[in-house]
Amino acid sequence: MSNPIEKLVHELSKLPSVGEKTALRLALHILRQPIDYGRALAKAVNETVEQICFCENCYNLSLEKLCKICCKPSRVQEMICVVEDIADLLAIERTHHFSGQYHVLHGALSPIDGIGPEELKIKELLVRLQKHPEIQEIIIATNPNVNGEATALYLSKLLKPFDHIKVTKLASGIPVGGHIEYLDPNTITQALERRLEFV
Amino acid sequence: MSNPIEKLVHELSKLPSVGEKTALRLALHILRQPIDYGRALAKAVNETVEQICFCENCYNLSLEKLCKICCKPSRVQEMICVVEDIADLLAIERTHHFSGQYHVLHGALSPIDGIGPEELKIKELLVRLQKHPEIQEIIIATNPNVNGEATALYLSKLLKPFDHIKVTKLASGIPVGGHIEYLDPNTITQALERRLEFV
Repeated sequence: MSNPIEKLVHELSKLPSVGEKTALRLALHILRQPIDYGRALAKAVNETVEQICFCENCYNLSLEKLCKICCKPSRVQEMICVVEDIADLLAIERTHHFSGQYHVLHGALSPIDGIGPEELKIKELLVRLQKHPEIQEIIIATNPNVNGEATALYLSKLLKPFDHIKVTKLASGIPVGGHIEYLDPNTITQALERRLEFV
Repeated sequence: MSNPIEKLVHELSKLPSVGEKTALRLALHILRQPIDYGRALAKAVNETVEQICFCENCYNLSLEKLCKICCKPSRVQEMICVVEDIADLLAIERTHHFSGQYHVLHGALSPIDGIGPEELKIKELLVRLQKHPEIQEIIIATNPNVNGEATALYLSKLLKPFDHIKVTKLASGIPVGGHIEYLDPNTITQALERRLEFV
């Protein structure tokens, strides 16, 4: 492990879905680029881990104690969208059609992987709801797979005692631009059951 | 681009087969690890690009002007194995059955991608052969695909004028541990044609 390239391969192979062979390929690619690329990459990694933290309120990425979304007074304070991951938050932000707050769980319940409620930011959500009685709606936007659905169900039960809060989830159906022929039977069933009347 | 995480996603997405979504996933993974991981990764990238260069003789990776293989007096000086890439060199080294020198071309001829002889370390190989009249054999170990075979053919013609040098290539056939039923017809044909007599 004295050789820098061996160290680099070792570190890169800890990344998700990067095995030792891919790590070597990435390391050789970095070496073949102009030296400025490697320098910029190292700097970006360093600045990210040194400067980025999680927002104390919603657990989004942040440079400060509170993230940009939590700090923005123009965002609706009465509505929280609960997501599994920061990538989901970013996907929803890209729609420009949600102006409320977020709460990032940082995962979904998954007993097989040893991820229970304690591993997620669920307790923090409850504390937040107690601190902010102005919150009127929680949109549970977990992924529509086994773990995501289990998390949504768990959360919905946990939120029952908050009588003044409406708990909703994202609509299921045919994705816009999707092909019905390639969709799974569950999605088509949901789309049929929740069919909309032309108005 | 003021946000460190955006910068990191931008730099990571320049890696081969890493799109913007994968880059975000990698960046979030780095952030979720203990901070020491990000620091170690950045350090490894930095040390690699600052310390590693290409050997002046064979174009292997090296910490010095000449790589460890070129410097080792116990290695046979009369034989050079020409490979496309450093990963190929490492794979051959792992066999512990080759004790000669290497020459890394850093690619294979590929007119479609604009890679001609000038882009590879071919001129450097010829200079090396002129400088070292003791070299008696060149093993061309390019990959057995279209680009690799074209490179091997090109090299073999280029080496014709060196009357004293034997030019060889790796044997084709059934890989050890391979399943005949899953092998392509070309490989089986080669293995049939070059069949070996029991002795």
